[in-house]
Amino acid sequence: MLDLDQIRSDTPAVSRRTYLHNAGAALMPTVVAAAMKEHIDLESEIGGYAASDRESGRLDAAYGSVARLLNASPDEIALVENATVAWQMAFYSLPFRKGDRILTAEAEYAANYVAFLQVAKRTGAVVNVVPSDPSGELDVQALEGMIDERVKLIAITWVPTNGGLVNPAAAIGKIARAHGIPYLLDACQAVGQMEVDVEAIGCDMLSATGRKFLRGPRGTGFLYVRRALMQQLEPPMIDHFAAPWVSRNEYRLRDDARRFENWENNYAARLGLGAAVDYALKIGIGPIAQRCRLLAGRLRGGLAGIRGVTIRDLGRMPGAIVSFTMDGHEAEDIVRSAAAAGITIGASDPASTRIDAEMRSLPDVVRASPHYYNTEAEVDRLIAHLATLTPR
Amino acid sequence: MLDLDQIRSDTPAVSRRTYLHNAGAALMPTVVAAAMKEHIDLESEIGGYAASDRESGRLDAAYGSVARLLNASPDEIALVENATVAWQMAFYSLPFRKGDRILTAEAEYAANYVAFLQVAKRTGAVVNVVPSDPSGELDVQALEGMIDERVKLIAITWVPTNGGLVNPAAAIGKIARAHGIPYLLDACQAVGQMEVDVEAIGCDMLSATGRKFLRGPRGTGFLYVRRALMQQLEPPMIDHFAAPWVSRNEYRLRDDARRFENWENNYAARLGLGAAVDYALKIGIGPIAQRCRLLAGRLRGGLAGIRGVTIRDLGRMPGAIVSFTMDGHEAEDIVRSAAAAGITIGASDPASTRIDAEMRSLPDVVRASPHYYNTEAEVDRLIAHLATLTPR
Repeated sequence: MLDLDQIRSDTPAVSRRTYLHNAGAALMPTVVAAAMKEHIDLESEIGGYAASDRESGRLDAAYGSVARLLNASPDEIALVENATVAWQMAFYSLPFRKGDRILTAEAEYAANYVAFLQVAKRTGAVVNVVPSDPSGELDVQALEGMIDERVKLIAITWVPTNGGLVNPAAAIGKIARAHGIPYLLDACQAVGQMEVDVEAIGCDMLSATGRKFLRGPRGTGFLYVRRALMQQLEPPMIDHFAAPWVSRNEYRLRDDARRFENWENNYAARLGLGAAVDYALKIGIGPIAQRCRLLAGRLRGGLAGIRGVTIRDLGRMPGAIVSFTMDGHEAEDIVRSAAAAGITIGASDPASTRIDAEMRSLPDVVRASPHYYNTEAEVDRLIAHLATLTPR
Repeated sequence: MLDLDQIRSDTPAVSRRTYLHNAGAALMPTVVAAAMKEHIDLESEIGGYAASDRESGRLDAAYGSVARLLNASPDEIALVENATVAWQMAFYSLPFRKGDRILTAEAEYAANYVAFLQVAKRTGAVVNVVPSDPSGELDVQALEGMIDERVKLIAITWVPTNGGLVNPAAAIGKIARAHGIPYLLDACQAVGQMEVDVEAIGCDMLSATGRKFLRGPRGTGFLYVRRALMQQLEPPMIDHFAAPWVSRNEYRLRDDARRFENWENNYAARLGLGAAVDYALKIGIGPIAQRCRLLAGRLRGGLAGIRGVTIRDLGRMPGAIVSFTMDGHEAEDIVRSAAAAGITIGASDPASTRIDAEMRSLPDVVRASPHYYNTEAEVDRLIAHLATLTPR
């Protein structure tokens, strides 16, 4: 059981607002903000280089923390600016030729899809979208049927940005492994709300952000690359940190995943990320995941009782992102009216997940995302607020 | 004239240490640290998305500030994670074919040179190093003589990391313009210590960092790309911010330089960068540059009187980076002994500027870099300290 009183006192803002926008950017616990502010003070006092030297132990420890979170090894972790950079450094490292196939899912995130299109244009590779099963999850049998020797990558978003769907990441991993196909998993909305175990999933590369369910700082992200694959990948762009300049006409790539990093970093943000991961690990991802599902389930239950509300979540076991529309109300208006009532939620635009949105004819949807630090009363407050909005 | 009392009271740490390591990372004025810490507090209170929305005016203004600093237009500026990413997003956007030539300088920075080598390996382009003139500056006549129709890029570091050299950026720009060759200027060590005017220089792309002479945060950088060139460049990696996903099989690159950015950012650091640029502009780059040269000149004068010291700076009019060696003392030992005396300086490793270091048989060199906020007394303190180190 998690100690909700302690957890809430670690995040003082919860006493002043109902924050249900954790799929956007969660509220940081005090320890995360403090780690950053203390480092900024240290930089102001002794200079930025001396400060990162002095904190080198804690900075190194952040790799270990992320590795523990993912059940990986610290040398398989790169800490980068955000989840997009993490994903890009992996994706753009992969070699593609004309006719090679990239398999992805219907609800793939826009950032990734435009990168597929760019590489397709550049190389002649093709992008194939694996259909969903009747529940809305990626259809694992359909995926299996699409595999041939031209498939050079399976790249999917585990938890799409636009709703509760949780794709069957581990079942996809089994297929990828059986056929020896590299598997890139976008875990941006998964880390921090559920167990993420790269061995159990069988992914070769995994990208994620700090700011969402991990409750870390904005401008932080990380990449996992399985050691055996990593050593075959040359990053799309390098500097002398990723690839030391060893003689006039030669560089030598680092042996570890930091070949996907570069020399200069925001160390305050890295310390904040490390603190956020440690905080989540201390509470325990198991209890966190259980409470996320409990609160999201409660929210869906309440929404189901409001006239005019349509819940838009897909999948057999939806996660902590709750998406819905309401007859006669634009998503943005609902977000604004909730904000006026002290409740923070968000909205998701069809262009973020264009293929899924077009197939389902989705308008902008409201996105409410509780987290373990929320209370049942907060969820009920949102439900009660929405019930006051009469269908128009 | 700059108000040194005010300036020093804006940076309280100067009362407690002699900080002469501005070419590494300068001390931030209080206003920069405060901008970051206040934003972190705001994020902790209302969440990361609402915080960046609320500060959108100041965040937009940062583009205007950087543009004013460079005499550019805000739509020609991208704010990115660091100077390396800025430089990479420009360099890796350029198309090269077998036999194309990249011209660079002897003291080119390692980060850039390994990228040249990677692209040379990938495309068959070749890297040619323009020789230096007797003063140590890039030889402009030699550059002119090397131009032919195969030269597809001139890429130089304006102020190399390993000493006082200031390359003739504007004379190079004249040649680049006359021949219609794209010109990428690494201004990492130049911004904040001297006038940087992209029109006067005639560069097409310019990259820089926040943390050095601009006195901004670590993990900040920016890229300038001239509008006419920008619109021909497709970034090496894109997301849906750089290139919105406009229909299932189509993305459309942004019209402005933010096509080199991606969606997620460290907004606290951006606000810190904006505050740093505004602070420098308020003091005035003219007076800053004048005082930098004055203090660096004083330091060189003092060093010249110490037995066993060899000043290693090149060029006709060296800038604020003062490099030297001392008989019988390793650079790192000198840095450590200065630190023990409360004086912060740094060292530069031959691998940072391998070609220049090999040509001059340079060992690690000591690097002392005063800035406008330093006093004559602080410079004299370093000189006095070095004088106590007898040649061995």
